[in-house]
Amino acid sequence: MDLILHEYSQSGNCYKIRLTAALLGVPIERREYDIEKGETRTPEFLTTVNPNGRIPVLQIGKRFIPESNAACFYLADGTALVPDDRFDRADMLRWMFFEQYNHEPNVATLRFWLAFVGETRLSELQRTLLPGKREAGEAALRLMDEHLDGRDFFVGDRLSLADIALYAYTHVAEEGGFDLSAYPAVKAWLERVAAAPGYVGMGA
Amino acid sequence: MDLILHEYSQSGNCYKIRLTAALLGVPIERREYDIEKGETRTPEFLTTVNPNGRIPVLQIGKRFIPESNAACFYLADGTALVPDDRFDRADMLRWMFFEQYNHEPNVATLRFWLAFVGETRLSELQRTLLPGKREAGEAALRLMDEHLDGRDFFVGDRLSLADIALYAYTHVAEEGGFDLSAYPAVKAWLERVAAAPGYVGMGA
Repeated sequence: MDLILHEYSQSGNCYKIRLTAALLGVPIERREYDIEKGETRTPEFLTTVNPNGRIPVLQIGKRFIPESNAACFYLADGTALVPDDRFDRADMLRWMFFEQYNHEPNVATLRFWLAFVGETRLSELQRTLLPGKREAGEAALRLMDEHLDGRDFFVGDRLSLADIALYAYTHVAEEGGFDLSAYPAVKAWLERVAAAPGYVGMGA
Repeated sequence: MDLILHEYSQSGNCYKIRLTAALLGVPIERREYDIEKGETRTPEFLTTVNPNGRIPVLQIGKRFIPESNAACFYLADGTALVPDDRFDRADMLRWMFFEQYNHEPNVATLRFWLAFVGETRLSELQRTLLPGKREAGEAALRLMDEHLDGRDFFVGDRLSLADIALYAYTHVAEEGGFDLSAYPAVKAWLERVAAAPGYVGMGA
């Protein structure tokens, strides 16, 4: 079945899907959208690709899976990137939901605001929210660091989608002003993920 | 294996897990925490149950699964509440990630602010955020309504965890000031979920 990734390549959420496909050796066609120009809010995109007006979306033949972590799950379902053990499989999803709820809205948002929008162009509301997002982002990184202390990967001692989901925005967290030297277990884990056979970088 | 739900029973995230267990006929022990008294932030809770200081957490023997949707997945893995088909399984997760990213932070947060904290006790920041959360919550409900138009359930025409995850805060959305009469397909779907064999209400 032909796979097409509808994406904005600088987005960590889109990169997760490319990284999953690369680690699995699955070829994937890429279609780029300029989110600043509203290309994911056109009537055609909303009708055909995703009524939520967001990327990434993974197209499988004529069907579509929005939500980055669900698209990764589609690709990896039945492979070694999804644990066989029932507890571990749920624990992997636990970290993927943590990523979307506690990590991405803080760590990824600050990267977008500081490295893409630019600090001087932030709205008053964004400026008001920034300290809270900084604190919540640091809390997410601290929790990851404590969990990884003494572990190689998030779940069951091998690479899984939990690592891929959390890697995407953590490895560029410094673009959002987070100092990763405060999180040595996270830094060592980032290197382990980057050493996985088939790994591709975000710019690849 | 003994199952214990660490919860705050008024939370929709906790109710999801009770509803999943009830629909599956799985007995579950309940342990209540008063979140306003900080009972999920004690050193013991953080060390033993969840370093993220949040409920719900599903305890399975001596191990713990935080994140409501991951706990539901643990309970339902291998049952009819998780589709057999690979695409449908990923599509179910798509709606569960949508729920945590687009629905819960708006629909559930406004319910908490208006029905639990009380409008007069909101902070200045909460007041500033309220209109944006109202708009985003309405957008989530509208997207659900459009998807459900002509469908019985979210994925593959039968009840799955996608329905349970979205049901939990949607069926009490009016406590957050959302008028569900604007969403007739959602209202009809709420009745279908409530008619499922084994269904329990939030107060049960």
